[in-house]
Amino acid sequence: MDTPAFQDFYPEQVAHCYGCGRLNEQGLRIRTRWEGEESVTRFLPRPEHIAISGYVYGGLIASLLDCHGTGTAAAAMYRAEGRPMDSEPAFRFVTASLQVDYLRPTPLAGELEIRGRVLEIHGRRVTVGAEVHAGGEITARGRIIAVQMPESFTAS
Amino acid sequence: MDTPAFQDFYPEQVAHCYGCGRLNEQGLRIRTRWEGEESVTRFLPRPEHIAISGYVYGGLIASLLDCHGTGTAAAAMYRAEGRPMDSEPAFRFVTASLQVDYLRPTPLAGELEIRGRVLEIHGRRVTVGAEVHAGGEITARGRIIAVQMPESFTAS
Repeated sequence: MDTPAFQDFYPEQVAHCYGCGRLNEQGLRIRTRWEGEESVTRFLPRPEHIAISGYVYGGLIASLLDCHGTGTAAAAMYRAEGRPMDSEPAFRFVTASLQVDYLRPTPLAGELEIRGRVLEIHGRRVTVGAEVHAGGEITARGRIIAVQMPESFTAS
Repeated sequence: MDTPAFQDFYPEQVAHCYGCGRLNEQGLRIRTRWEGEESVTRFLPRPEHIAISGYVYGGLIASLLDCHGTGTAAAAMYRAEGRPMDSEPAFRFVTASLQVDYLRPTPLAGELEIRGRVLEIHGRRVTVGAEVHAGGEITARGRIIAVQMPESFTAS
């Protein structure tokens, strides 16, 4: 049932990100997978992740969208090359820009779901669009431009 | 030496934000003050706040810009009305949109400095521009559109 996530394939030396690194013990350790053409992250906010009582703080939403975007970008590049995520060379992306529109307050009530899709692949740059779903509504929309890290960071 | 920060004046019931609430013990508790026409936040990232080794993760940068923006918006509204921040009614803002451009990696080396300014006040909406300074360089730029919370949230 626990199928591997995009972040499970990040090379060890680039797997310490606070948002998505599986090796960052204090971090959020988000995990993202394909569901058809969409990339999906589910994340349970911690009780302290509030803006005001009962609502998720915007910085967490931005963080989730950011790491969801870089993960989706990496997975999309493997897919574009028709090779599995455990093959070499490894892809790992950093964020060039992040746009978040907060449409309504995000209730702190169970898991958040971030659903994204690839809008464009242009050389080493991938643009990802994503929405945050909470309590049956879309509460925020994001647009992430991610750029592939230099190979010197990811070579094993 | 420790002059009050904008966030010190947030009404208690809206002072629990993970990013900037002085009453959130697990949070970042950022503090912002005027320096002339600029609003300034200084923040020391925690060791775990990394993207890759030696560099600050983007979600923290987005979080700092977000709360720096809402704090600056509140302070700007008091200033526009010519009254001190401990006067009533209290101003507290939420983020409508956040744009972050990551210009270069942000070194994890001492305090980050976020310097912002008010770009526009339009009714209950304030637009703030800000830059993140680290290691002597501007590493990211942000633009935050903040909207005043309904008075029902802030009335004491």
